[in-house]
Amino acid sequence: MPGGFISFEGIDGSGKSTQARRLADALRQLGRDVTLTREPGGSPGAEEIRRLVLEGAPDRWSPETELLLFTAARRDHLEKTIRPALERGEVVITDRFADSSRMYQGISRGDLAATVDALHALMIGVEPDLTLLIDIDPEVGLSRAVARKGHEQRFEDMGLDLQRRMRTGFLDLAARYPSRFRVIDGARAPDAVAADVLAAARTHLGL
Amino acid sequence: MPGGFISFEGIDGSGKSTQARRLADALRQLGRDVTLTREPGGSPGAEEIRRLVLEGAPDRWSPETELLLFTAARRDHLEKTIRPALERGEVVITDRFADSSRMYQGISRGDLAATVDALHALMIGVEPDLTLLIDIDPEVGLSRAVARKGHEQRFEDMGLDLQRRMRTGFLDLAARYPSRFRVIDGARAPDAVAADVLAAARTHLGL
Repeated sequence: MPGGFISFEGIDGSGKSTQARRLADALRQLGRDVTLTREPGGSPGAEEIRRLVLEGAPDRWSPETELLLFTAARRDHLEKTIRPALERGEVVITDRFADSSRMYQGISRGDLAATVDALHALMIGVEPDLTLLIDIDPEVGLSRAVARKGHEQRFEDMGLDLQRRMRTGFLDLAARYPSRFRVIDGARAPDAVAADVLAAARTHLGL
Repeated sequence: MPGGFISFEGIDGSGKSTQARRLADALRQLGRDVTLTREPGGSPGAEEIRRLVLEGAPDRWSPETELLLFTAARRDHLEKTIRPALERGEVVITDRFADSSRMYQGISRGDLAATVDALHALMIGVEPDLTLLIDIDPEVGLSRAVARKGHEQRFEDMGLDLQRRMRTGFLDLAARYPSRFRVIDGARAPDAVAADVLAAARTHLGL
């Protein structure tokens, strides 16, 4: 693969979705073909699995079943969207990838961290070439997420304490995989964040 | 667990579903509480995953994604139906369990056998206490399955050659796990098959 697989990670309300869109636009203006995608979802089959997981009562699926469903969605996303785009020479920007499972299923729900890693190694086996972690204070992130009031409130409903553990977990992950992670301060104005994001991507891509 | 977890396995048209029902009835007449269930499915969540897998084009999901979806369904089935019934002291009879994944995903579709076993060990980890393999000549099995004309034709459409490999694969599995497998000749009249099935179950359960 040509190294063009870029993921955005961060807690709810960090602004990562906005930044992913802005990076896609900026790279297109620089002449690159870009596929912008997201998880859970990102392919027709994965979007159906996403609906199955996110609709209904929060305790509808156990953490283990939820992890299996998200991994099935990720496998479909990888096969149907990410790999074909990379093989066409495009840059792929995804709003969340496996690091989100490491946080949401691995840290917040049950003692599943080792299982998350083992399942990833067995059924996915691929990491992004560059992961941009948009880091933000959880109180700021949560107020942004609540203001947005999306239809899929399950994860956001888990509250401030969870977001705090999640932020720490993401920073720990960045320390564990320093070669692919770049931590970007997301508390600033969107233009300033976008400038740092683009600089990191250009350095990585050699643009 | 009290050892009351019984699975039926066999190729399409072997008569295992009929035999599972008959065994449930016979054990109830002997005074046991019985939960009769089936895979894929067997719990409300698993039935939804079943619909997602079995509807649509046969190549809609890759073998790996399909395996993950069936494993998610199995995990839900185990948590919501099988374990609670065993904890209530019931006998659980399931029409298919993990051995079917070993055959359908492990033998027939891609070189996935080792992955099927690793995923089972990681996310399920439980085997039936007794597995009744209803063994039948594939030509007989296929003509029965086609005569039935169910709504979910995907697997039956795979044809005679697949059924032959499947029969051999099930017999190999029985040889690999002799302590839990009993092979029953399914080519005889249903009453004769049912008598052997009941005898094996009574011996196992000490009834």
